[in-house]
Amino acid sequence: MKQKVAFLGLGVMGGPMAGHLAKAGHHVTVYNRTRSKAEQWQTQHAQWDVAVADSPASAAQQAEFIFACVGNDHDLREVTVGPSGAFHAMPKGGVFVDHTTASAEIARELGVQAQSMGITFLDAPVSGGQAGAVNATLTVMVGGDQAAFDRTKPVAMAFSKAFTRVGDNGCGQLAKMVNQICVAGAIQGLAEGIAFGMRAGIDMKLVLEIISKGAAQSWQMEHRGPTMVDDKFDFGFAVDWMRKDLGLCLDEAKQRGALLPITALIDQFYGDVQRMGGQRWDTSSLIKRLR
Amino acid sequence: MKQKVAFLGLGVMGGPMAGHLAKAGHHVTVYNRTRSKAEQWQTQHAQWDVAVADSPASAAQQAEFIFACVGNDHDLREVTVGPSGAFHAMPKGGVFVDHTTASAEIARELGVQAQSMGITFLDAPVSGGQAGAVNATLTVMVGGDQAAFDRTKPVAMAFSKAFTRVGDNGCGQLAKMVNQICVAGAIQGLAEGIAFGMRAGIDMKLVLEIISKGAAQSWQMEHRGPTMVDDKFDFGFAVDWMRKDLGLCLDEAKQRGALLPITALIDQFYGDVQRMGGQRWDTSSLIKRLR
Repeated sequence: MKQKVAFLGLGVMGGPMAGHLAKAGHHVTVYNRTRSKAEQWQTQHAQWDVAVADSPASAAQQAEFIFACVGNDHDLREVTVGPSGAFHAMPKGGVFVDHTTASAEIARELGVQAQSMGITFLDAPVSGGQAGAVNATLTVMVGGDQAAFDRTKPVAMAFSKAFTRVGDNGCGQLAKMVNQICVAGAIQGLAEGIAFGMRAGIDMKLVLEIISKGAAQSWQMEHRGPTMVDDKFDFGFAVDWMRKDLGLCLDEAKQRGALLPITALIDQFYGDVQRMGGQRWDTSSLIKRLR
Repeated sequence: MKQKVAFLGLGVMGGPMAGHLAKAGHHVTVYNRTRSKAEQWQTQHAQWDVAVADSPASAAQQAEFIFACVGNDHDLREVTVGPSGAFHAMPKGGVFVDHTTASAEIARELGVQAQSMGITFLDAPVSGGQAGAVNATLTVMVGGDQAAFDRTKPVAMAFSKAFTRVGDNGCGQLAKMVNQICVAGAIQGLAEGIAFGMRAGIDMKLVLEIISKGAAQSWQMEHRGPTMVDDKFDFGFAVDWMRKDLGLCLDEAKQRGALLPITALIDQFYGDVQRMGGQRWDTSSLIKRLR
C-alpha cells in the first residue's frame, strides 16, 4: 500500500534507504540539514514521487511514517522535539522510526514523549553498513510498541532483509550495542592473529582460509581478514563512527553495572587509530597499531 | 593402501583419531603413558588390526607413519627423542606426525633432528575439538617437508576433513596459534556482549539470532552463544588447555616482537576462571567472570 512517508537525514545510510522507499512507490518527503544534499537526492529520484522539505516539522506533516537516520543523540533530539522537530507536526497515530544508533536512554525518553502526544516512537538501529543500505539488506533491531511495529514492518522491508522487534523502547539500541561489542572483540582478535602470523612469516591468506572452516570463523575473518592482510581499510563503517557506538555501549554498561573490560580497551585502541589519521578508515584498521 | 602405523597418546583426541586409522584398515600399534588406557582402547578396537606397545620406541619399529597427540612440549620431547622415544627406533624414511599443540620452536628443533636421522617430522596441530576427532572432521595445519606431507595426507584423511600444508616446520603450530588468538577475541567479545545484554534485560537468544545474520556473526556466536546464555559450559575444549595454548602464543609473540594486548588480558581472564574452579569448563566460560 502506498503511504505518505518522510525521511530525515540523507547520509550514506539514509540516502539509499529513502531511495528504496521511493522505489517501493511511497510518497517520500525528505529533509536534510544541508538542503543542497536533499535537492541532489531529489534530482536523482525525480522519476519517483518525491519532495524536499525545509524542516523535519514540514516533512512530517501528513506523513504516516517518519524515518530518520541522523548522527547522534543530539541530532535526534533536534529532529524530533527540537523547535522545528517532527513530533509537534506529526498527525495523530503517526510512527517515528529512528534508524540512528543512539543511546537506549533517549529512545526511552522519546518513546514516553511521543506517547503523550498521540504518536509512536520506535528505536530501530540497523546493521549491514552502507552496502546493506544500498542493497536493501539491512538488519533492523526494533524497540517499541508492537502494534506500531506491525504497521511499520511492511514499509520498512523496502530496505531491510530482517526487521525484528526485540522489546520495548530502548531494546533496539541495546541489541545494536551487543552487536557492536561482539564485532569489536572479533575484529581485535582477528587483528592480533593476523599481525602475529604476518610477523611470523606464514602465508596468512592461506591460514585464514584454513581456520575459517572451524571455531575461529567469523564474518569479520571471512570479509575483512583478507583485506587486513592486504593493508586495505576503505570498506565502509569508519573508526569515528565505531568510537561513537562503543562510547554508547560503555555509558550504558556503566549505568547498568555491566563489565566491558575488553570493549573499553578496544575503544582506546580505536583512539590510537584516530591519532594515526585513521578516522575514516574502516573498523578493521585496528591491525594498523599492531604492525 | 594399508600401512603400518603407530599412534602415541590416546587422550580425548588421540583415542578416536587412532580408532579412525584402525577402521581405515591400517595396522595400528598404540602407546599410552598409562598402559591400561591403551589396553582399553585395544579391547574397544579388537575387531581391527591393532596392537599395544610398551614404549614409543617399540610402537615405532617398522611403522611408516607415527602419529602422536600428547600434552605439551615436554611430553612431545619424551616420545620423540627421550630415552625410549620413537625417533631412534623409526625405520629410515618414516614420518613422525605430531598433532600436539606445541611450540613452533620444538617443531623446528625436532624437524632438524629428524632430518639428521633420515626420518621426517611434521608439526600438525588440529582444530575441531573432541567432536572433530570423534567424527573424523578435524582441520589439520601442517608444517614440514612437502614430499612427506604428500605421503602422509591420504593416511591422515582417515580423521581429517582438511589436511593442509602451511609451510616449513613450525608453520603448522604458528597457524594453530593464529586460530587460538582469533578464537579468544571472538569469545571475549561475545561474552561481554551477552553479559551486557542479559544485564540490560533483553532477550539474548533472540538478539543472537538477529545479529548472527550480520557483521557480528561468528562460529562462537552460533555455537556457544546460546549455551552461554543458558549458563552451560561442558562443550569440550577446556580452560586449562586454552591457557596452555595462549601461553604458547604469548611466548612466541614475545620472541617475535608481536603485540597481543587483548590475548594477554584474556589469558589472565582465563586465570580468573581457573580460580573460580573452572579448569574443565569449556572456553566460553569467560562469561562467568562478567556476570
